[in-house]
Amino acid sequence: MGYVVEHQVRFHETDGAGVVYFANELVICHSAYEASLAAAGIELGVFFKAEAIAYPIAHASIDYRRPLRCGDRVTIHLTPTRLDDSSFEIQYHLKLRDTLVAEAVTRHVCISVADRRRCPLPTEMERWLTRWGDSPSGEEQ
Amino acid sequence: MGYVVEHQVRFHETDGAGVVYFANELVICHSAYEASLAAAGIELGVFFKAEAIAYPIAHASIDYRRPLRCGDRVTIHLTPTRLDDSSFEIQYHLKLRDTLVAEAVTRHVCISVADRRRCPLPTEMERWLTRWGDSPSGEEQ
Amino acid sequence: MGYVVEHQVRFHETDGAGVVYFANELVICHSAYEASLAAAGIELGVFFKAEAIAYPIAHASIDYRRPLRCGDRVTIHLTPTRLDDSSFEIQYHLKLRDTLVAEAVTRHVCISVADRRRCPLPTEMERWLTRWGDSPSGEEQ
Amino acid sequence: MGYVVEHQVRFHETDGAGVVYFANELVICHSAYEASLAAAGIELGVFFKAEAIAYPIAHASIDYRRPLRCGDRVTIHLTPTRLDDSSFEIQYHLKLRDTLVAEAVTRHVCISVADRRRCPLPTEMERWLTRWGDSPSGEEQ
Repeated sequence: MGYVVEHQVRFHETDGAGVVYFANELVICHSAYEASLAAAGIELGVFFKAEAIAYPIAHASIDYRRPLRCGDRVTIHLTPTRLDDSSFEIQYHLKLRDTLVAEAVTRHVCISVADRRRCPLPTEMERWLTRWGDSPSGEEQ
Repeated sequence: MGYVVEHQVRFHETDGAGVVYFANELVICHSAYEASLAAAGIELGVFFKAEAIAYPIAHASIDYRRPLRCGDRVTIHLTPTRLDDSSFEIQYHLKLRDTLVAEAVTRHVCISVADRRRCPLPTEMERWLTRWGDSPSGEEQ
Repeated sequence: MGYVVEHQVRFHETDGAGVVYFANELVICHSAYEASLAAAGIELGVFFKAEAIAYPIAHASIDYRRPLRCGDRVTIHLTPTRLDDSSFEIQYHLKLRDTLVAEAVTRHVCISVADRRRCPLPTEMERWLTRWGDSPSGEEQ
Repeated sequence: MGYVVEHQVRFHETDGAGVVYFANELVICHSAYEASLAAAGIELGVFFKAEAIAYPIAHASIDYRRPLRCGDRVTIHLTPTRLDDSSFEIQYHLKLRDTLVAEAVTRHVCISVADRRRCPLPTEMERWLTRWGDSPSGEEQ
């Protein structure tokens, strides 16, 4: 269940305290989300150009347990959950070897770009949810 | 009550969707926190060098209501609250004219850098809390 | 001659070495460019949305003399120069009090977004060049 | 000759014009430099903590030929050159399939952190230069 990807911490992600700057851990989570989309066959260029449909983030939260340092190899374990026909949530677990270093959540709403109103998730996103999600079944499609 | 500062959105804060990248709104919040420290007479260079005491962020969360665009003049209204003798929370309201565009919270723990254990907030931070905080009185000092 | 703006270094601009990350000094330069556009009456939202005309950067270079630290108040002195009817260059001097800490250059080409070909600088940019530039006269318009 | 690494462009690297923000191409170059260090057996955490020796960047320049978009898989080809016993230069070629999209250079000086004066490159850096560099021979060690 879920999608797993590794990220090696880069120097520009750290701050003057010698550890990853807090907001950059959310950037790392979002990069893992992008990788999970690509791994499900979604074309990132088209997806994020967002000409018809976009998935703005309505909420993000993160709990930090341990600091991350330059060169650390973090494993990001990501699990999306369908909330309703026009929104989903993603949970992220960041681990260093077997130690949990951070946990985060992002909540996304599917909107039509023209009028910025909610619209149903398109088939490719239902497929992505089924592929990596923890829903009990695959009947969303 | 609270500290207020304005920020004009810069181009590098936006992403390919033409709006401020979600994690950058937390960066904007943190910059407001830094400004509130400086406005209370705290030396930022020393504070963030964190040789003896540091204030790592244990939790951050944010709710997005409206997108922000390049050139937008956002007003950040920040209110710190003392949680106990070694931690505090900051609430942020981001507004565009009178419209709330985002609300965020960060939770900070005061630690001694040597052993990374909790320690009491030093006087300058108690003073900062009294100065901008919404605590009922100023007897913390 | 030129446009001058101050910037106080923020924590997210620093890296694990405790000083501003090299590429962030170019971000600071670009923010000063944005401020100079706004100060000449140019609407940043429209300018950077770039629906008809865009000004991609063709070249950037920077020499670093002294490190910058969190809290430092840098003065950016910016001078644009018209290169020909479809391009311009900007020189930046970053100073800490009277000490030069970095010098940078960016070169921009004016293109029509539809076909990504060079096109003449519009009146508002000729005006911006005259306003802040070091050209001997204002006959460009 | 040289070190080659691939990078898939992430959404946070793009800006409101829908392409990679100019300074982020230097960030991509620096990440490739970090990967080349790790690939030569250098411990990134220790290297960038820079307790005794640091390698500040004295100069950076970059020429942009084509814009990069979210999802693009860029190949970074990096070649370091020893300039003298305390400094080196790195050349970067960024390619999309066989098309050159950008060329960059960074110049680094080896300093002792205690007094911020130039000092000779340590053995591990001479080895890194020999490993990926285009020097005619390997007698630097």
